[in-house]
Amino acid sequence: MTNRRITLASRPEGFPRETDFALVEAPVPEPGPGEVLVRTRWLSLDPYMRGRMSTVRSYASPVELGDVMTGQGVAEVVASGSPLFAPGDLVVGQTGWQEYAVLGPGALRRVDPALQPPSLALHAVGMTGLTAYFGLFDVCRPAPGDTVVVSAASGAVGQIVGQLAKLAGCRTVGIAGGPEKVADLAGYGYDVGIDYRGEDVGAALGAACPGGVDVYFDNVGGAITDAVLQRLALRARVAICGQISQYNLSQPELTPRSFVPLIVSRARIEGFLVSDYSPRFDEALARLAAWVSEGRLRYREDVTDGLENAPRAFIGMLRGENRGKTLVRL
Amino acid sequence: MTNRRITLASRPEGFPRETDFALVEAPVPEPGPGEVLVRTRWLSLDPYMRGRMSTVRSYASPVELGDVMTGQGVAEVVASGSPLFAPGDLVVGQTGWQEYAVLGPGALRRVDPALQPPSLALHAVGMTGLTAYFGLFDVCRPAPGDTVVVSAASGAVGQIVGQLAKLAGCRTVGIAGGPEKVADLAGYGYDVGIDYRGEDVGAALGAACPGGVDVYFDNVGGAITDAVLQRLALRARVAICGQISQYNLSQPELTPRSFVPLIVSRARIEGFLVSDYSPRFDEALARLAAWVSEGRLRYREDVTDGLENAPRAFIGMLRGENRGKTLVRL
Repeated sequence: MTNRRITLASRPEGFPRETDFALVEAPVPEPGPGEVLVRTRWLSLDPYMRGRMSTVRSYASPVELGDVMTGQGVAEVVASGSPLFAPGDLVVGQTGWQEYAVLGPGALRRVDPALQPPSLALHAVGMTGLTAYFGLFDVCRPAPGDTVVVSAASGAVGQIVGQLAKLAGCRTVGIAGGPEKVADLAGYGYDVGIDYRGEDVGAALGAACPGGVDVYFDNVGGAITDAVLQRLALRARVAICGQISQYNLSQPELTPRSFVPLIVSRARIEGFLVSDYSPRFDEALARLAAWVSEGRLRYREDVTDGLENAPRAFIGMLRGENRGKTLVRL
Repeated sequence: MTNRRITLASRPEGFPRETDFALVEAPVPEPGPGEVLVRTRWLSLDPYMRGRMSTVRSYASPVELGDVMTGQGVAEVVASGSPLFAPGDLVVGQTGWQEYAVLGPGALRRVDPALQPPSLALHAVGMTGLTAYFGLFDVCRPAPGDTVVVSAASGAVGQIVGQLAKLAGCRTVGIAGGPEKVADLAGYGYDVGIDYRGEDVGAALGAACPGGVDVYFDNVGGAITDAVLQRLALRARVAICGQISQYNLSQPELTPRSFVPLIVSRARIEGFLVSDYSPRFDEALARLAAWVSEGRLRYREDVTDGLENAPRAFIGMLRGENRGKTLVRL
């Protein structure tokens, strides 16, 4: 039995290429005492992984050259040395980009068999939903009537944020790239959609937000963020979730980003990481699961089949070619 | 009796020139029923006034061409239609850059006769002290042991922030321009002084803040702020008080300012205005006055004599030529 794995072959400059990854075969690992051997069924691909390919200071260590790419998956228990898990159980854990992984039971979360499809445990009822939930409710603290602007609004996190903001009684403005994605926005709770490829974002924001922007949930950074920062309302709150426009630059982008508007609006900008909220994941997951089952929280998956295609799907996501949550089905 | 006044003659592009101001004479105004006529003794000159000369969106209306420049002064009551004030009383109010002003009693705050010199009511026991107090304690929330970095550290606000941070048990790092100002920093509670004109600020910060920057109180913006943002500690808090490096640019400065470090450090940047804290001014002024009288809060005034010299003093302050709080004595 072999374990196919995607490893980091070289550190990319700028946009990663498929040759920065390698598909290698290794023996299926043996679980030690108390450990669990799992087989990956679904792999989550997320922008943060670009940071793991780089040695620039980040909140987590980089993947070493030759090591398997890190990532979260939904997996099936194959063999278990832990009384907590039995073969056949579905779990979520840091499988990495590989078919088999050995993990400690404390690093696994059981997937409720009622959750259908189980890939939801990586998206709306998993890390993506949690990111939207804590970033919006804890960092941005929206009030009913607030105007909430979201960048990458049709993406994995953005499509959840729009709907959560709507549940909270907000007006919602989504920014996405291209007419297809903008057309999706109404289904994700957005009152207004802005196409940053086809429109002047500043002018469109001015029209969509006559009272200014109370909340900005930022997934992209760059010029879109600069346009929003010019239109902050009094006491605006900005959550920095991701800055995907910056991850693949070989040189830092020069920007006219001034903090004077923060004084004028007494506004707050805050970066956050969903992992800091882990003590409250259960609370949020229960709500997210209920909203999905009640039909109040919709989602879209962008599924690629085959581990060998993960690098291509990942690069496509960095280029904005995905429509919804990027997943690999193994 | 004539009232000499400094009015706005033209809107500056870039750095103001003396010809952007005019010295004009007008009759001394007559107080209406309930109003108070005051004679300005001390005038406070502050960087925010540069914003009032411009029509760019701000938190307050601009001064109209031909109108007297706005500003706060310590003044003596000359005639009073209000039972709350009597001739000879010293008050603080929005006198503007002029010798005489008529103000409503609700817009005046009495200066405690025990406060010596009374100009303290414009500085350490006035707006400057309040700005330092609320910006540091409310926005930055320092904890003992935090490393607090302050830009324009020897300036009016900065010299108070350093000492307040020291009272709160913090390590303090001040950034100032030139050896004279840096030499002043030790007297303002700073453990380390950095000369941004003579040193590589990034390298000096790295040496001074081996555990990163927990709190940054920003008065300047620009490249100094970019250097600090590269060195934020986990959960860092940044208060944007002023951005004086930006006020006199005719074009926005291009900067490699990315928000990725905010995610890495889960850091917060917040703009604030001291006027938002007015319901709590009494609480803070009592503490500031006590610290001054106990010798725990030192201050330095940079005094120019004569209303006619206010424009020159103001421009000098914008260029960083002042040493401490810029005041005009009338």
